[in-house]
Order: sequence, then structure tokens, then C-alpha cells
Amino acid sequence: MVPSKPALISLDSHAGKNLPLYEQVVLAVRGLIDNGSLRPNDKAPSIRSLHKQLGVSMATIVQAYSILEAQGVIESRPRSGFYICNQPDFQLREPEKTTPAQISRKVSTHEIVLSMAEIGHTPDIINLGTATLDAELFPIKALRRIMGSVVRHSDALGFYYDMVPGDYKLLKQLAQRSLRWHCRMKADDFVITNGAMESMHLALLAVAKPGDTIAMESPTFYPLLQTIHRLGMYAMEIPTDPRTGMDLDALQTAIKNSQHKHPIKALFTVPNFNNPLGFVMSDDNKQHLVDLATAHDIAIIEDDIYGDLHFDAIRPAPLKAFDKEGVVLHCSSLSKSLCSGLRVGWIAPGRWVEDIKRYKYLMNVSTPTISQLTLAECLRSGLYDRHLAQLRPTLRQTMGQFFEVIAKTFPKGTTVTQPRGGFLLWVVLPENVNVTQLYQETLVHNVSIAPGPIFSAGQEYNNCLRLCCGLPWHDEIEWALSLVGKTATKLAG
Amino acid sequence: MVPSKPALISLDSHAGKNLPLYEQVVLAVRGLIDNGSLRPNDKAPSIRSLHKQLGVSMATIVQAYSILEAQGVIESRPRSGFYICNQPDFQLREPEKTTPAQISRKVSTHEIVLSMAEIGHTPDIINLGTATLDAELFPIKALRRIMGSVVRHSDALGFYYDMVPGDYKLLKQLAQRSLRWHCRMKADDFVITNGAMESMHLALLAVAKPGDTIAMESPTFYPLLQTIHRLGMYAMEIPTDPRTGMDLDALQTAIKNSQHKHPIKALFTVPNFNNPLGFVMSDDNKQHLVDLATAHDIAIIEDDIYGDLHFDAIRPAPLKAFDKEGVVLHCSSLSKSLCSGLRVGWIAPGRWVEDIKRYKYLMNVSTPTISQLTLAECLRSGLYDRHLAQLRPTLRQTMGQFFEVIAKTFPKGTTVTQPRGGFLLWVVLPENVNVTQLYQETLVHNVSIAPGPIFSAGQEYNNCLRLCCGLPWHDEIEWALSLVGKTATKLAG
Repeated sequence: MVPSKPALISLDSHAGKNLPLYEQVVLAVRGLIDNGSLRPNDKAPSIRSLHKQLGVSMATIVQAYSILEAQGVIESRPRSGFYICNQPDFQLREPEKTTPAQISRKVSTHEIVLSMAEIGHTPDIINLGTATLDAELFPIKALRRIMGSVVRHSDALGFYYDMVPGDYKLLKQLAQRSLRWHCRMKADDFVITNGAMESMHLALLAVAKPGDTIAMESPTFYPLLQTIHRLGMYAMEIPTDPRTGMDLDALQTAIKNSQHKHPIKALFTVPNFNNPLGFVMSDDNKQHLVDLATAHDIAIIEDDIYGDLHFDAIRPAPLKAFDKEGVVLHCSSLSKSLCSGLRVGWIAPGRWVEDIKRYKYLMNVSTPTISQLTLAECLRSGLYDRHLAQLRPTLRQTMGQFFEVIAKTFPKGTTVTQPRGGFLLWVVLPENVNVTQLYQETLVHNVSIAPGPIFSAGQEYNNCLRLCCGLPWHDEIEWALSLVGKTATKLAG
Repeated sequence: MVPSKPALISLDSHAGKNLPLYEQVVLAVRGLIDNGSLRPNDKAPSIRSLHKQLGVSMATIVQAYSILEAQGVIESRPRSGFYICNQPDFQLREPEKTTPAQISRKVSTHEIVLSMAEIGHTPDIINLGTATLDAELFPIKALRRIMGSVVRHSDALGFYYDMVPGDYKLLKQLAQRSLRWHCRMKADDFVITNGAMESMHLALLAVAKPGDTIAMESPTFYPLLQTIHRLGMYAMEIPTDPRTGMDLDALQTAIKNSQHKHPIKALFTVPNFNNPLGFVMSDDNKQHLVDLATAHDIAIIEDDIYGDLHFDAIRPAPLKAFDKEGVVLHCSSLSKSLCSGLRVGWIAPGRWVEDIKRYKYLMNVSTPTISQLTLAECLRSGLYDRHLAQLRPTLRQTMGQFFEVIAKTFPKGTTVTQPRGGFLLWVVLPENVNVTQLYQETLVHNVSIAPGPIFSAGQEYNNCLRLCCGLPWHDEIEWALSLVGKTATKLAG
């Protein structure tokens, strides 16, 4: 392997001027890869040469390289230095903006949704579809130790009803943590729930009535569609770009044209590492969206459950960080980033906090104290942060493996999203592939995917699917993903 | 104390012929008390004399007397034999049947409801109002041991989403236990929830739409009223007798007159140790009610949460035991009889089981596995039964203390229910007492009661209150209850 010519690098040419120096270095190296100056298996510039070229300290370069390594962008080879890894985007293109019909409509229930929930737990099925972090990626020993200690030290009140809004120890941890989300929340801004799905359910109950319309990205988080249907509400899908998020002009038009009979009362969005599209909205768009909602008196129900799973150094801000008037109902949990079985989440419901407290009490009185204290201790002790530091590069790496297999086995013309965090991919197959048929054919071989139509009130996206990279990568997964690709290729003809 | 003349006793004269012999003896002794042959502080017939008189074995008499003792009917005095205790009904009469206006109506939200939920946890307040078992009555050490062991032995899946309908170990325990409820249910008849309130919430979602009417006893379990309101449904209160339950003729008339616009789609009832009235419906009435609902295609949402807290030997059957066509949605948990903080309950939803599974998944995915396994082990190990054997006589005794204080301190003309299980009392004060004022006046002294109007969609019962005997009896409770009585007496003028 002949080392490439030294690549020209500078810190002036990119958009990250306000970032810390090491982040600017990360972006500069990425820029060289993006513009083709550095290709897979090229030797990366040495730390010493970058130190000289850029005029920043060796320590800063070392920090940047350790981030790039964690991100799977470069790898260190013994006694030889750093090399550029195979990049996910070396072949695959990203999908185009979606164009759903923009009408308020009833959601049709989809049988596949419930069967997917069941499939998620059938031991023999390799599930590439549901948006869950595999239990093998949980820090089980530490969780067991922490929860055991909480149980051992619990007094009688640990086995008594907790009080809405939740245990103060957890509320306080969340308030402290909100600083890292670029928010500045207080303990009493939060209400504890049994997971983020309950948070969103409560949010819908608080901000809309039967007959009201909820606007949302298209495609969207499908269980929410089903909940909207169940609560007698209507859904309106807004065109969405897999790189930048919801089309805010289209949203504004939809709000202007909102029917008197089914008015748009709320907007649902996953602004960070979107489910299923993977994008992060820019800060400008986030601010614009919050301003738009504030001006039109529309509530924003935000699902920020993937926000901590950023591959880059900085945690993207939730919409809540841009919310001055309390129009954002911020919903989240650690079910996608620590473990899913505690069933503890939260909502920071802005101006609806009193309503949400009342509905939470009516729904199931309270969330178990022992689970709340366990989560509080995971945050306080630093376990969660240590776990994240391991989890992020693992997910990044698995996603890279997914890209390789997709590039090799999926039909020509396939496009796929390229998220910078989370663990979900949205795959757009050639138009003639019927993904419901693909779903059924792979299920015969005990491999499950999430077919596109369930992500849409109007059952669009019949040539699309969602894949989950929240798995420990091994031969069986590779086999299963290849099977999906080969079956799709066969169906593409 | 002069022993009373030997009382005439026989096993022929009562309605319990199909009961076990020891139960017949219990009823026979109770009959002597009820007809005045035996009065408080009288010596009870000796075991030997009853053995001779009734011609049943000594062992049977001993068993009957130990039940009567547990029930607080007789007490053993050292070296002297058994004596009749002060009976709860020695002074107080039971309230009359209620007569609510029978119309489909929207529930008005009541601020006191949420404030009561908050008061329930304020350490300085003595809460005589909420229907909760005090944490001091939980078997904390055993709960801690069992839950600790579940956590210690849990694998990764213990921290993963559980699958609806719930963990099989718990489902199997419930199926086995249903035999004692005179039901014969299978594991897959149940769906596990985060407590009985969630079960009822899911049941409402499954059987009714916004605009539909839910019929119910009057007074009724007030959080359900608030949920009905939140879901856009209407409430219809049916006249109810504190001794026998809902007036089924009135119900039948209400169904016949049911408005096309707000049809009665479901009936909500607490058939065993009713909240708040304390009655147990007779088996005949239970059968009649289920037949009526079946004939008119109306769902029955049954809350059986107090059923295990029977003071007499036999556990009353839930409506589910009379349900052949699957019209009963049986909801319950052990939150009122073991501990409230696990937040695990269940629903056996009959013909709606598939809907309920779907809505449970949409509401909060699943109930924590570790909590479910803890409850399963409490049942399997016999802890729950051992705990019940202690709890029932404790509650019975506390209720007796309540009666004594009520008889001493409440205004003349007060009537109070006399339940044979559970831990709730419904008190009817003289008509001129404004219970909202009573609520506010006692709250100034940090004593809380549950005022009557919150138990009614039409805010009736403004001279009534509910009291909770699920407390360890001590001087402070006696002081608080006396305060309520004296304040009521003052308000009665």
C-alpha cells in the first residue's frame, strides 16, 4: 500500500468555527474524506504533521483522532499509524425527500404492527425491524448491582405508591442532566412516566381532543400513529428530507390550510437521530419550528429518545432548548440507550404540566419508586455515561457493517440514510419491490424487517423498510441481512 | 360479670346449609348475636357445650371459634373462656339506598381529586380519605428479600422489554389463583398491566368511544369518573343499596331508556367490598347482572381489588365467575392487599383480549419484568397467603375501632356502612352538614377525609364521606378521627 500524498488541510474552510478546536480537527479530517482527498485504506496524516500544519497542540490532535477512531472513521494499525476505514457512504446514496399526500386522515390500523411487537420477542426470529437496543448491549452486571442495592436499602415507602410527578432523586438527576441537552430545567419541570411511549400518550391526551389533527414527519414512528387512531385523532404527514428533517414551508402551508373540522393542534417530531429517517434537525430549523408552533399556538410533542447516541462529539439539542413559551412537550427515556426493561421515562410538558400530572395519576397512579431510584443511581454514579462511551462506537461500527452488507447484497438503485447517531436505517428499494411481500418472504426464514407502509397513515412507502443496527454484530446477523438484500434483489427482478 | 343463660343454638335455622360445617357454626353464633341472645361481654358457649348441643366434632368448633376470634366477634380471656366483643353494629345504623338522578352526563372535574392524590403523600397529614393500605401493613422484609433475589438472578431479559400479555410465570400464578375466585381461567386469559387503574383505563378504551355512556354504582370509585371525563365519555349513576349493591331494576330501566346519542356501552362495578359502599353483591345478583349485560350486549368492567380481604371464611366470587360469553373485563391487582408500589395489576378482558393487548402495547409497551417476577414469587411462595392471614383480622379490628370512635364522636343520626371485608367505610352525616366545609376545616388540622361529592358525576353526597381503615391503629389516628367527628357534630349544630 503506497501512502497517499499529504492532503491539504486547514481549519478555515468549514462551518464549525464555534466548536472546540479538537472538534474542528475532526470536521477537517472528515472534510478530506468527503471531498475524496482521503480514501479508504489511505494513511491518515500523522499526529505530528497535523500539529505542524494546523498549528494546534499535539494533545488536541490526539483527542480528535481518538474521537475519529471511536467513530469508525480511522483505525490505528500497529507500528504504522492511522488509516482511513471503509466509509459507509462509499457507494450508497441517501434517499430523496418524501412527498406524502398532505391531508388530515384517519390512520388505518395495521395488523403487522401488533405482530411486530410479538415477533420482537420470539426467540427464533432474527429481528432486524424493531427499534430496540439488543439486551446483550445492556450493562447487566452493573444494573443488577445498582437495583439490588436500591431494593436492599429500600424502606416501606419504596413499596408504596410514589407521588406524581415522581421521585425527587430522579427528578433532580434529570434537571442536572438537562444542562448537557443545552436546556436548563428544574426538577419540577418533569413528570416521570412508565417510558417515553406513555409520555407521548399523555402528551396527546393533554393537547388534543378526538377529531383534532396531529402533524408529523413522513415516515413517522408507527406506534404513535396507532395511538392517534385509538384516541380518535387524525394524522397529517408532512414531506420530510432524510438529511434535514420536516419541510417547514410545507408545514406552514398545512397549518394555514388546516380544516376547521380537524384542526392541527399538535406536531409530533423526533428531531435528533430521527426514527426512522436518522436526520438531526439543524439548530436554525429547530428554532424556526418552535417559533412557528408558538406563533400558531400549536403544541410540539418531541421524542428525544435517541439524542444521547451521537457519534460525533456534541449532543444535539432537543427542541425544548429553543422553547421560551412552554409549547414543547419533551418526551424521552433511557430505553434505547441504557436498558428498556425498567420502564421509566419522563416528560417535560411545558405549559401542560398540571394536566399531565393529573392524567398520569389517572392512567396508572405512579411509576414504581424502586425503578425510579435505580435509574437515578445509574445517572448519579456515572454508569450511564461510562456505558454510553462504549455503546456509541459499537453502534457506529455495526452501522458500518450494515452499510457494507447493504452495498453488497441489496438491489441496484437502493438508497439508504446515513445517520450520525442512533441505530436506525431507512432503506428505499427500487420502486417495483413490494416490501410487504419482502416482509413475508424473509419471515418464512425467521428474519423480520419493519415494512415501510406501517410508518405512514396513508400506507405509503411500499418499497421502503427500516433496519435496526442496535445489535451485537455476528455471522447470523450478517446472514439475515444478506437474506433480506438477496430477496429484495430477486423481487426487483 | 354474670355469665348469660346458655343461648339456644342450632344449625338448621340459617341460610348456609351448603357451607362447610365450621362455617355453619360461625353463622349460628353470629345469629345469636344478631338476634340479641348474646350481647357484648357475654360469655360465649363453651367449646364442649357446643360440641354436645350441635353434635359436631370439637375440632370443628375450635376451627369456628378461631375464625370468630380473627373476625373480632369473640375474644379469649385467660382462664375464663370466650367472650362476645363489642360489635360494630351495636349503635350505628347502615345508610339507605342512594337515589342519584339517572341521566347520561359529563363528569365535572373536581379539584379536590388531584389535591387528594397529593395529600396522600404529604408526611404531616393524617390521611383518613384515600383508599390505600398503609405501608406499615406491608410485609416489607419479605418483599425486599424476594425482589432482591429476583434482581440477583435476573438475566439480560429481565432488563429488556417484556412482551404483552406479560411474563408467563405470573400469568400461570394468576390462572392457578383464579380457582380460589371460583373461576377457572387460563394463563392466556390475562393481560398484565401497571396496576388495576391502568386495567380499567384500557378496558374503557376497548369497550367505549367518546360520547358513549358508562353506567355505574352511585357513589362510585372517583378516579374512574375522572378517566371517563378525560376520554370524552359520559357517566350514568344508578341507585345503589349499601347492603346489596346496584339496583338492577333501575339499571334495566336505564338500559331500556338509553339515549341513541349517548348509549350505555359498559357498566363499571366493584362487586366485592365495594368502594366506597363496602357491600358484596349476592351470587344471585351477580348472575342476574351478567345475564342482563350479556342480553343487552353491554360490557362489564369489574374492579375486584378488595376481593381477597374478606373477614368471613369464604372469598366472594367476582362477576367473572358468572361470565359465560366473555362480557366481563375483570380488573385487579394486589395494591390494596400486599403492596402498592410494585405497580403490577392485571385484566382478564374476555372477548376484548386482543384489543387490550394492542392498547397495552401502545400505552407503555409492557410492565417491568422484574416487578412481575417479584409478584409471581410472592404468590408462588405462599407469602401473599401468609400475609393475608395476618392482614384480614388487623383490618377487621381497626374497623371495629373506627366504629367505636364514630359512635362516640360523630353527630346523632350518622349512619355508616358495615362491610364484611376491605377497609373502607361510607359515612352519611345529618343532611345539614356540608362535607366540603368539613374537609376544609379538618385539613387545617392536617387531617384529610374523602368528601362525598367527588364520588358522583352529579356531585351528590354533600353530607357523606369515605374513611379508610387500612391503617395501623394508634392514638394519632384516634385523635384524627375524633376531630372529624367533633367537627361534623359542630357543623350539624
